Amino acid sequence: MEKKIILTGDRPTGKLHLGHYVGSLAARVRLQHDHKQFVMLADQQALTDHADEPEKIRASILEVSLDYLAVGIDPKKTTIFIQSMIPALPEIMMYFLNLITWNRLKHNPTVKMEIQQKGFGEEVPAGFMVYPISQSADITAFKADLVPVGDDQIPMIEQCVEVVRKFNRMYKTDVLVEPKPVLSSIARLPGIDGKAKMSKSLGNCIYLSDPADIVAKKVKGMYTDPTHLRLEDPGKVEGNPVFTYLDAFATDKAHVEELKAHYQRGGLGDSVVKKYLLDQLQAFLDPIRARRTELAKDPKHVWDTVFKGTDIAKTVAEKTLTEIKQAMGIQYNGF
Amino acid sequence: MEKKIILTGDRPTGKLHLGHYVGSLAARVRLQHDHKQFVMLADQQALTDHADEPEKIRASILEVSLDYLAVGIDPKKTTIFIQSMIPALPEIMMYFLNLITWNRLKHNPTVKMEIQQKGFGEEVPAGFMVYPISQSADITAFKADLVPVGDDQIPMIEQCVEVVRKFNRMYKTDVLVEPKPVLSSIARLPGIDGKAKMSKSLGNCIYLSDPADIVAKKVKGMYTDPTHLRLEDPGKVEGNPVFTYLDAFATDKAHVEELKAHYQRGGLGDSVVKKYLLDQLQAFLDPIRARRTELAKDPKHVWDTVFKGTDIAKTVAEKTLTEIKQAMGIQYNGF
Repeated sequence: MEKKIILTGDRPTGKLHLGHYVGSLAARVRLQHDHKQFVMLADQQALTDHADEPEKIRASILEVSLDYLAVGIDPKKTTIFIQSMIPALPEIMMYFLNLITWNRLKHNPTVKMEIQQKGFGEEVPAGFMVYPISQSADITAFKADLVPVGDDQIPMIEQCVEVVRKFNRMYKTDVLVEPKPVLSSIARLPGIDGKAKMSKSLGNCIYLSDPADIVAKKVKGMYTDPTHLRLEDPGKVEGNPVFTYLDAFATDKAHVEELKAHYQRGGLGDSVVKKYLLDQLQAFLDPIRARRTELAKDPKHVWDTVFKGTDIAKTVAEKTLTEIKQAMGIQYNGF
Repeated sequence: MEKKIILTGDRPTGKLHLGHYVGSLAARVRLQHDHKQFVMLADQQALTDHADEPEKIRASILEVSLDYLAVGIDPKKTTIFIQSMIPALPEIMMYFLNLITWNRLKHNPTVKMEIQQKGFGEEVPAGFMVYPISQSADITAFKADLVPVGDDQIPMIEQCVEVVRKFNRMYKTDVLVEPKPVLSSIARLPGIDGKAKMSKSLGNCIYLSDPADIVAKKVKGMYTDPTHLRLEDPGKVEGNPVFTYLDAFATDKAHVEELKAHYQRGGLGDSVVKKYLLDQLQAFLDPIRARRTELAKDPKHVWDTVFKGTDIAKTVAEKTLTEIKQAMGIQYNGF
C-alpha cells in the first residue's frame, strides 16, 4: 500500500518551544517513518500578518530548520521546504479564489477568532483574509491525505475540503484530494505562567534552544498551585503546569504518579517537584541542544538541506498545477 | 530617452468588436511605435467571474490574438502574452495582498459598480474582490509607466499607485514604478441599438471578424433618431449611433459634416446615411478581415507568436519578482 501523504509546517516567526514539540514536532518525528511527509516553512503565510517584518521571518527560517533537524525530523524521510520558493502555490491559490465567495471567507471561524486575537479591527490585511485559500492550495498541491491540526484549525481543513469538492465538480475531475485532519493526541502544553497556551507573544515559553541555565531559571519560576502555601498543605495537580510538563516529558510515568499522589495529600514541596522536572527536561533537551549547536556551526549546510527539500517540493507542486490547468482546459499547447 | 512602458490587455471572453477598436486597439497600433508595449491576454482575470467557462476563455485567446494581429498590433513591436503563463504574477499579488486591507478592497468604486452590474449580490467570488490587487501585480511586474483605461477604470490605477507607495515605503526601496492612467481620447462607441456601450452581453456589437453580409445586416438594422419619421423631417445627430460611427470610421470628415447638416435640416433618409456608413465600415474592415482570414489558416503560428511574447514577458516579470523579494529580504541565498 502506498504511504499516506502528510502536509504540515510552521509560520517561521521565531524559534520553536516545548509547546511546538508536544503539539506537532513529536508527531512528525514519529509519523515520518510510515508516511510521506512534507513540512512547510510557511514564510508567505507569516507575511500575511507580519508584512513589515520580513527580516524576522528570514532569520526564523534558519532557527526553525535547526529546531526541526535537532529534534529528529530527518530530511531523508521528510521533505522540508520553503513556501515562497514554490511558485505553483500562489498560482493554484489564484484559481481557488474564484471558487469561494468573499462572504464565505468572512465567516471562517478560525479566521474570525484570529482577527480578534490579533486586534486587527477593520484593518485586516486582504492576504490574511484569504490565507485559508492559500492553505488549501498548499494542502492540495501536495495531495495531502492528512493534515495534523489543533482543534481550533479544523475549519481550515473544512475550507480545503470545500475547495476540493467545488473544483473537482466544476471541472469534472478527480485531480484534487480531500484532506483529513489529524488531531494531536496530546493536550496543548500550558505556559510556564500557567496560561492555557505556551506562546511567544505571552513570553511564557521554554525554547528548544534555551541554554541549560535559562531552562533552570524558567522552571524555578514556574507557576504552580497558588493555594499550596505550606509544605504540609494538599496541592492541586490539575491546572498545575509543573505536573502537565512531567506528564509530557518525564520518562518514569509511575514515579510521576507517586509524586502526584504525594503532592495532593500534602507534604511535597514545589521546589522538590520542580527539581525533578528540571532533571527530566534537561535530560530531554540535552541531546537536542547538542545537535542544534553542532548544526548551527554550518548554517550553509542547513540552508542547503532545506533548498534540496524545496526542489523536491517544487517538482511535486508543479505537477499538480499542470494537472489543475489541464483539468480546467487552460494548459495551452498551441492548437 | 528610454521608451515609456505601457501595460494594457483584454479579458479573453469573446471576439473583439468595433468598440474595442475605437476604445483601445487603435491607440495600441499607434502607441507601439514609440513605446515599449505589453498587451496581456488576461485569462486569469477572466476566470474571476467566468470560473465555470474555461473553454470559452481558451477559445477566446486565439480569437482575440487574431483580432490583435489583424488590426495591426505588430508582435515585433508589441509583446503579446498570456497572463496565466507568467507564474511571477500571482506570486507578486500574494505579497501585495498583505499591504491592502479587506476594507479598502470592499470600497473600490470600480469593483462595487461591477459587482452590481454582474448581479453577484452576496455571492462575489473572492478572486473577483481581489482582482484590483492582481491588476496591480500585472502593472508593476512590467514597471508600466502608462496604463490606458476608460474613465470607469481610474480607481484601479489609484489602487495600484497605493500599492506601489506602500511597498516602496515599507521595504525602503524604489523598485516599483507608479503608473499613470492614459484616458482614451475617443468617446465610447455606442451599440447598434443606440445603447451607451457596445457590449457582447447586450448583443449590440459589430465584430472585427463579422463577414461583410453580417455587417450589412447589422448596419441596416441600426438604431437612428426614432423621431425622424419622414424623409423631410429634421433628424437628430446627437445620440444617433450612425453618425457616431461615421465620426469614428469615415475618412472624409468634411463629407460627414455635410451629411450631418443635411440630416439635421431634413431631407436626408436614414437608408442613405446607412449606405454611406456601410461603405466606410466595409472599407475599414475589408483589410482586417482579409488578414484575419489568412492568419486563421495557421492557428499554430498565432499561438507560437503569443508564446514567444509570453517568454519575453516571463523574463521581465521574473526579474521584477526577484527585485521585489530582494527588497523584502526574502530572496534566500543560503547564508
